[in-house]
Amino acid sequence: MKLTILFGGASFEHEISIVSAITLKEKLSNFELTFIFCDSDHTFYLIDASKMKAITFSKGEHKKMPVLTLTQGAFLQKKIFSKSEYSSTVLNLIHGADGEDGTMAALLDFYAIKYIGPRIDASIFSYDKRYTKYLCEAIGIKSVRYEVIYKNEHCNITIPYPIIVKPVSLGSSIGVSIVKDESELDYALDVAFEFDDTLIVEPFLEGVREYNLAGYFANNAMHYSIVEEPHKEEFLDFEKKYMDFSRSEQVAQADISEALRLRLQTNFEKVYRGLFEGALIRCDFFVFHDEILLNEINPIPGSMANYLFEDFATALEELSLSLPHAKRPKVTYDYIHSISKAKGK
Amino acid sequence: MKLTILFGGASFEHEISIVSAITLKEKLSNFELTFIFCDSDHTFYLIDASKMKAITFSKGEHKKMPVLTLTQGAFLQKKIFSKSEYSSTVLNLIHGADGEDGTMAALLDFYAIKYIGPRIDASIFSYDKRYTKYLCEAIGIKSVRYEVIYKNEHCNITIPYPIIVKPVSLGSSIGVSIVKDESELDYALDVAFEFDDTLIVEPFLEGVREYNLAGYFANNAMHYSIVEEPHKEEFLDFEKKYMDFSRSEQVAQADISEALRLRLQTNFEKVYRGLFEGALIRCDFFVFHDEILLNEINPIPGSMANYLFEDFATALEELSLSLPHAKRPKVTYDYIHSISKAKGK
Repeated sequence: MKLTILFGGASFEHEISIVSAITLKEKLSNFELTFIFCDSDHTFYLIDASKMKAITFSKGEHKKMPVLTLTQGAFLQKKIFSKSEYSSTVLNLIHGADGEDGTMAALLDFYAIKYIGPRIDASIFSYDKRYTKYLCEAIGIKSVRYEVIYKNEHCNITIPYPIIVKPVSLGSSIGVSIVKDESELDYALDVAFEFDDTLIVEPFLEGVREYNLAGYFANNAMHYSIVEEPHKEEFLDFEKKYMDFSRSEQVAQADISEALRLRLQTNFEKVYRGLFEGALIRCDFFVFHDEILLNEINPIPGSMANYLFEDFATALEELSLSLPHAKRPKVTYDYIHSISKAKGK
Repeated sequence: MKLTILFGGASFEHEISIVSAITLKEKLSNFELTFIFCDSDHTFYLIDASKMKAITFSKGEHKKMPVLTLTQGAFLQKKIFSKSEYSSTVLNLIHGADGEDGTMAALLDFYAIKYIGPRIDASIFSYDKRYTKYLCEAIGIKSVRYEVIYKNEHCNITIPYPIIVKPVSLGSSIGVSIVKDESELDYALDVAFEFDDTLIVEPFLEGVREYNLAGYFANNAMHYSIVEEPHKEEFLDFEKKYMDFSRSEQVAQADISEALRLRLQTNFEKVYRGLFEGALIRCDFFVFHDEILLNEINPIPGSMANYLFEDFATALEELSLSLPHAKRPKVTYDYIHSISKAKGK
């Protein structure tokens, strides 16, 4: 099948997106792929598949490739006497800002380009960790208690140490610290405020088990990946997660009971349905004192969590045939006509 | 000052947006205004100020005017041997879909065009009435109890009659019905489902007082309009609201105590701060049994609620000088460089 991989973005996770795209190129070798790179200045480039190497971007060689603009139904390449349109379904693979904050969803919807990825509202509820908490509360999903800290405001944390400090809007562990006691707090806040003006603080739960589950809705049913228990030291730092993003070999199923697997799936479906249709997402759950807590929603997981699926290519193909389409209301001028008539009397 | 009025959109409120724009043209006669119309097919047109009449659009005459496209920092008009850029601050005046659902916010942010209006996240929490409820719950603002109904799913309403049925994502009373008893329910649902696949049901509160308050944040402080108690029969239907959108004369302050006025402002600030910066919004409150309930957030109110402000032009000018600007993270290729180096060893 044809698929356009859209990657890059003006984001702290720009490089991770490049790694994801390169990984998917290998993983989807039987697809007819188009690669579109969104540079950090928001210029789109058409990238030759043979140049899909990290060094192409770090050396700025992509700037010599064709520039694309958005037009109704397609990305457009203008040539001197002609133009080419790239209109195949897009896989939004921009992690973090631009990709996961609703921007790309809005652009693709506005220009009527079909895409795999979270819609605008789903983006908002997964990109900002505060709003994920709002969602959990509203739909009855348990999550870890939290407090919010704002830059330049007095910080009054009541959660007992150890705590975990995170920028509200970044993934990939960027700016995240575990703080064992008050002496480590200032440094952790400084680091996190480098990346965001709003932070979230949670208790660091000792002895928690973490389970990752990916899934999507297609053909009128939910489809789930295997459940993985990610290996971790305290938690994955950025560099380790970065390497993690290039994973392409299927991982082992976590050693959990069928009952727990089903409970994780039930929680996943509750988060997903009515909001994430069109996206393949990964939910990271905690199990703590036999309770399931939602830790994080990754609406565009690293390398699309391909390593969690037995047949990833088929999964993407299925999903691409079940994409929601943005409805455009038909505009009539009934009221203006009737008012003009009334005035004419 | 210079200001671009962006109006239209592929929305059920398309015509209302045209009326709003025409009203503001009169109200901001000392501004240097540019008019950009977003047609229902998502083409942008530059509209000559002298043609800012409803009939221009209902007759399709705008299609003869210059087409604009988006480029970094501006709307662009291509001419045969040159181009013009329109880069003044935009007032997003597209009501409903496209304007209030986060789409226009995302486009303007992506193309680095400054604008008055809700950002993406603020849009999501005001456009969809369910998400307004989520927000209320999370930040401790009271609102009317509600239930959600989905198209093609069994509908089990437990709220006693009379109830009010609304599409979740439309403003201007479109598709809204008051349902006195079960015999009226099916018709009300049919009407509402014409406009949206998800509905919200609330009790219809008899004897409720309604108060509208507009405001914005600028120069490090909140600024409030007067409080209006809107006249209403049962509630304003679309046609009446439509006429209402062309209001430009200042209305009378509601006859309420200073204490209530301050309580309304406190509730407004709680909704606004940290989310709606950059927008002039109108909150519609209910007062019921001495409790303040948030009924609705209008992030782009009809004709910008100009009639609630003593000096509307100054308000817009102040706000336009206090707009948040989207930060773009600087992209370095540190990780790719360090990995390339490690591999080279």
